[in-house]
Amino acid sequence: MRILILGGDGYLGWPTAMYFSARGHEVHTVDNYLRRRVHQEAGTDSLTPIAENLPARAQAWRHVTGYHIGVTEGDITDWALVESLFRETQPDAIIHYGEMPSAPYSQMSRDHAVFTQYNNVVGTLNVLFAMRDLSPDAHLVKLGTMGEYGTPNIDIEEGFINIRHGGREDRLPFPKMPGSLYHCSKVHDSTNIHFACRVWDLRATDLNQGVVYGIETEETNIDPRFATRFDYDEVFGTALNRFCLQAVIGHPLTTYGKGGQTRGYLNILDTLQCVELAALNPPESGDYRVFNQFTQQFAVNELAEVVQRAGAEYGFDVKVEHIENPRIEKEEHYYNAKHSALLDLGLKPHYLSETLVESMFSVIERYKDRVRTSAILPRTKWRPERRVSEPAV
Amino acid sequence: MRILILGGDGYLGWPTAMYFSARGHEVHTVDNYLRRRVHQEAGTDSLTPIAENLPARAQAWRHVTGYHIGVTEGDITDWALVESLFRETQPDAIIHYGEMPSAPYSQMSRDHAVFTQYNNVVGTLNVLFAMRDLSPDAHLVKLGTMGEYGTPNIDIEEGFINIRHGGREDRLPFPKMPGSLYHCSKVHDSTNIHFACRVWDLRATDLNQGVVYGIETEETNIDPRFATRFDYDEVFGTALNRFCLQAVIGHPLTTYGKGGQTRGYLNILDTLQCVELAALNPPESGDYRVFNQFTQQFAVNELAEVVQRAGAEYGFDVKVEHIENPRIEKEEHYYNAKHSALLDLGLKPHYLSETLVESMFSVIERYKDRVRTSAILPRTKWRPERRVSEPAV
Repeated sequence: MRILILGGDGYLGWPTAMYFSARGHEVHTVDNYLRRRVHQEAGTDSLTPIAENLPARAQAWRHVTGYHIGVTEGDITDWALVESLFRETQPDAIIHYGEMPSAPYSQMSRDHAVFTQYNNVVGTLNVLFAMRDLSPDAHLVKLGTMGEYGTPNIDIEEGFINIRHGGREDRLPFPKMPGSLYHCSKVHDSTNIHFACRVWDLRATDLNQGVVYGIETEETNIDPRFATRFDYDEVFGTALNRFCLQAVIGHPLTTYGKGGQTRGYLNILDTLQCVELAALNPPESGDYRVFNQFTQQFAVNELAEVVQRAGAEYGFDVKVEHIENPRIEKEEHYYNAKHSALLDLGLKPHYLSETLVESMFSVIERYKDRVRTSAILPRTKWRPERRVSEPAV
Repeated sequence: MRILILGGDGYLGWPTAMYFSARGHEVHTVDNYLRRRVHQEAGTDSLTPIAENLPARAQAWRHVTGYHIGVTEGDITDWALVESLFRETQPDAIIHYGEMPSAPYSQMSRDHAVFTQYNNVVGTLNVLFAMRDLSPDAHLVKLGTMGEYGTPNIDIEEGFINIRHGGREDRLPFPKMPGSLYHCSKVHDSTNIHFACRVWDLRATDLNQGVVYGIETEETNIDPRFATRFDYDEVFGTALNRFCLQAVIGHPLTTYGKGGQTRGYLNILDTLQCVELAALNPPESGDYRVFNQFTQQFAVNELAEVVQRAGAEYGFDVKVEHIENPRIEKEEHYYNAKHSALLDLGLKPHYLSETLVESMFSVIERYKDRVRTSAILPRTKWRPERRVSEPAV
């Protein structure tokens, strides 16, 4: 298959590019280095050293494996770029990670919020128009997020729900209660993609992904230059990755609020499997399909306990500290999200274990001296403190 | 009350400004003349002659009534403008009509689609941030659309639906199936506004309005310079207004497809009442409220019949022509949308009657020589005809 990977320089994008390339697909990547730029501005960085840019990564990959990965350095909000990309690569599948991926980033200020929604919505609209006009048979595999649903008091279905109401019935999009302006942007995307499938007969799979953890894949382990990024900062870091790092550097695990917040989680190895299963099993033309992409649910407190147990085995004395929650979210709630569609397609999950956590410890230890502890604690609050009722004129 | 009207130069915005001003409120209007510019580019215009700009309208209003309406000519996607507007006017209520309002416009091309979503989403985000930081107690009265819901096979509730599922229950946002990229932009707005109410404790009423008809309000009738615009072109015209005009000029009423498309409709007089009822009865802080704002449901064929009957009484021989539907939509479907919230607040509907249609005939007749018939028929197709499977390289 000819596979176009948008956001091919990212935590998941680069491992995905190598994964498909190693399996004989023709892979082309695009990235505008947004995440590298934001890190640079904030004075933060990936824990793992990564190759200096996408061409360097692709060159190393070619050098070691003999496989070619195409590279375009550019921005998918630029229509001219997207148009020529589709003309030149004629993709069978578009794997779309090419978005601003951080909830705290979107909540930092009006500028950040507007940028996030502009970037994600316009980039995805460009992809949809390029598909309509240049690759109408291609399959869009879009990375959504479980955060689109929020935490409803009913079971979360995979994208659609059968509703009986007033003696009638319909299968309708599952209601959304996104938890940040970033998550709102993903809901906007879903609305637009669903529309494009209904009206233009495109085919798309929206992968509502849980929180990904892990550093290593089959391919990243081949050569240090194939390493993927590992973020632990307040902007791009996610709970389990951050907890593992905190355990290694002797920092208490910082759980936000009561820690009862429950979410879906999956190993990065399973992200690769899921994206492959989606790509190899495209939906019919006109079909908009949603898969909930995670393998296990955990409350934040449960994750902290896993890391504590693994730490004890590994020889770390791990403490847990409940800090003030910078987000506005339920800290105790019902949560049960369905996730059988990818299992039905053949997903073989790598479940979370102390052993996996310990293997993360050992990679993190290697780069321990690169940690900037000042970047870890949350600074962005969902509800800013200063509320001016009567503005000064 | 201090009332800020975004989009105060529009079909509904201007009558709303006069309505509140005449009732003793302090009114400030903002508009960037988007609709006037789009008309100018297309070589089309309002059927009714309207004053040359918002200052001219406000000046005439002051001259005749003695009331002051404030004017800002500018764009709410410009944050500096929005910020100073909120600082200066300190509104109690923001009535937000300030969006690109046309479904066909959003479907014309990628550029039009991107502009529509950018314009509507960013303008509304700016308003939400201005409220958060400068007017946290103000009430946002946002014009949404019944088109956000699409045509589900169950009754449409007002914004939220109680769902029983797997032995549990929750009240969740009613699922959305918007029918154009413009309607998608309104769904995006609803998602963002709901989020802002949940997280920033803002208060908002989303008025999911049906199709408005009518030319005359108490205030427009005072002076010809107070007239509101009346669009009949394929971009901004809506079904009933267009049918009335077609009857007057002896053109067959053009129904799209089978004509079974059913929607909610309301008289412009009831828009004014509804917006007033919403503004005078604000929700609690943190509450996001949705009202379905229409008074009657009609299939397109039923509307055509009303106009035919009124035409017969008036002395017109009105024919109906089913033309190819440029849109992708169900032409026969279940439709039953609840709309009791505004009635409960005291709305006294002006129902559609042959008499009302005849009074529209008489206004339209006055400006019959201004009609450009070439602007009436639809040119924008939801699904473009040329689909290139294998693009030329």
